[in-house]
Amino acid sequence: MAHASRRPMNFNPGPATLPLAALERARDELLDFAGSGISVMEHSHRGKEYEAVHNEAIALLARLLGLPPGYDVLLLQGGASMQFATIAANFLPAGGSADHIVTGAWSEKAHAEAAAWAGIVGGSARVAASTRDSGLARVARPEEVKLDSRAVYVHFTSNETIHGVQYLDLPRFGEAPQICDMSSDILWRKIDVAPFSLIYAGAQKNIGPSGVTVVVARRDFIQSGRKDLPTILQYRAYAEANSLLNTPPTFGIYLMRNVLSWIEGLGGLSVIERRNRAKAAELYGVIDSYAGFYRCPVVSDSRSVMNVIFRLPSEDLEKRFVDEAQRSGMIGLKGHRSAGGVRASLYNAVEPEWVSALASFMKEFVSRNG
Amino acid sequence: MAHASRRPMNFNPGPATLPLAALERARDELLDFAGSGISVMEHSHRGKEYEAVHNEAIALLARLLGLPPGYDVLLLQGGASMQFATIAANFLPAGGSADHIVTGAWSEKAHAEAAAWAGIVGGSARVAASTRDSGLARVARPEEVKLDSRAVYVHFTSNETIHGVQYLDLPRFGEAPQICDMSSDILWRKIDVAPFSLIYAGAQKNIGPSGVTVVVARRDFIQSGRKDLPTILQYRAYAEANSLLNTPPTFGIYLMRNVLSWIEGLGGLSVIERRNRAKAAELYGVIDSYAGFYRCPVVSDSRSVMNVIFRLPSEDLEKRFVDEAQRSGMIGLKGHRSAGGVRASLYNAVEPEWVSALASFMKEFVSRNG
Repeated sequence: MAHASRRPMNFNPGPATLPLAALERARDELLDFAGSGISVMEHSHRGKEYEAVHNEAIALLARLLGLPPGYDVLLLQGGASMQFATIAANFLPAGGSADHIVTGAWSEKAHAEAAAWAGIVGGSARVAASTRDSGLARVARPEEVKLDSRAVYVHFTSNETIHGVQYLDLPRFGEAPQICDMSSDILWRKIDVAPFSLIYAGAQKNIGPSGVTVVVARRDFIQSGRKDLPTILQYRAYAEANSLLNTPPTFGIYLMRNVLSWIEGLGGLSVIERRNRAKAAELYGVIDSYAGFYRCPVVSDSRSVMNVIFRLPSEDLEKRFVDEAQRSGMIGLKGHRSAGGVRASLYNAVEPEWVSALASFMKEFVSRNG
Repeated sequence: MAHASRRPMNFNPGPATLPLAALERARDELLDFAGSGISVMEHSHRGKEYEAVHNEAIALLARLLGLPPGYDVLLLQGGASMQFATIAANFLPAGGSADHIVTGAWSEKAHAEAAAWAGIVGGSARVAASTRDSGLARVARPEEVKLDSRAVYVHFTSNETIHGVQYLDLPRFGEAPQICDMSSDILWRKIDVAPFSLIYAGAQKNIGPSGVTVVVARRDFIQSGRKDLPTILQYRAYAEANSLLNTPPTFGIYLMRNVLSWIEGLGGLSVIERRNRAKAAELYGVIDSYAGFYRCPVVSDSRSVMNVIFRLPSEDLEKRFVDEAQRSGMIGLKGHRSAGGVRASLYNAVEPEWVSALASFMKEFVSRNG
């Protein structure tokens, strides 16, 4: 391979690139964690060495999120997809309605999983609004959402990775508890957590490797969950056990700690936000400057800062673009099979210079093919 | 610390010690997996580099298990504890009975979680036999088990880590499908998989780090599972997606691949079995030779090869034993808080010379304190 000896510019949609510093730290202490002579993976999850990392990861999350009092941070397994079902299991009773806002593939899946649970317990999971008729090309507006009077919560997805659609200003949909899947944009900037009853995120885009899932939720909301579920499905049980209900994915949590610590070292979320906005602005700038060649299918106020989607004049050119970019050391740019085109994922750990290299490549590609 | 520069002899009950070769391999390629220039954690789970590891891990498991035709290997998240609930969700219908054999803390938890699910769907989860009255000091015998006529499956736990009780010959309990939690002894030796409809195991004792769970099951049994569950709870969905239903814990699976590859390189399960039997025989030999000082509470034919439990004449001596052993570089020997005493976990990756060192220490400890 042309670039085997050099670190590629990795635009993967997730699992995504990780900060080099976080990986180097993991490598350097892989066989000897905290002077213990063994790997962090070989420590008991009940031992003081691992517990220090576990608690540091939780504290970093709380600090970076600016968590208000009365919230718990849970570290779970199963990915966001497991939460699709677990949220309904905890909070959707017989006769209740889970109201879902659909703006892309992930919010559709979240609804389908909640609907399956609703079928088991005799509740309902509604699509309270969907942008499918407008091609999943924009976020939903609060005024177009019709909530059920029995809504026990509203669920939406802050960023849709496949369709490149993001709520750049987080909305509030009615008065029911707000639940948000932030898997692909958690910690992209500082947000106000207070309006949310529950936020969740698979780690593998913005904050760590796959295999760790973060849930941040109001303590009273957690406690309101169904109490006769198997313990392992109850958020309450994780909250009471500081997420040590059963053996957690210790290495994944350790690595997430390294990533969060890197974010803090960089200057925290204000710096990360500037970085992320600049990266996205650079790519959308090229797309709009070469509007006869590149085209972003997403409505301008809904364009994702995390996943920049664009089309070229033909599928043939799109394929050539992705192949040539890869030969120039830029990987992970192929659009999702269901959406086509090109997708550049610009998560927290994507370096600004990679994005500048991609922007240059885009301009140069037009000059050769435009 | 006295032994910071030397690798401690790690008898942790899980997460447990890992083969040094598996860790060194992970360290050496942590930043550059398969010549790609990036970490295995940074690869897409849909990319060819990761898929090769994923499929190799599955193939190694199938090969080492000597898997008969008609079985699927699934790689999941959530630990064995998540399977306690998921098994019931898939296979326990309204009106059916899940018949559990209780021989320790883990089989009790498995029953409790199944019972919670039974309460939701209107089934029942029975204790078909329990050794609690005999102090959880032995396995159950097929002749003492009374199965319900509506039993849809029988569940037992092949090795109980807290009480040090193991089925050294795997039993068959009646005619219903047999389900076994092999979290703490999977691949300790070659077994016949054919009598089992489903076997499962958290990886973090014998085959890898925490965060990966293995399910091995008959294809027709998987397909018989409930079809209206949320997809993420259906074993069928993982089987159809080759366990790439959602993002798997890629690094954990990679590391498990390294461990399984180490087992195969050592000579496979016949070598592992000899190693494991010799390790356990050495410790039980010392216990029995110094029977006035050490005492194993487990009935002789049920003594675990994986977790050797023993008591000393007083709790004070037990504490001193664990402390002095730790100062001699032997860690993880404290018994579980619910059982007390000393526990030496002798999983696959525990080196025979560590066990010999522990045996010598035990003898020497008697000479000083007996």
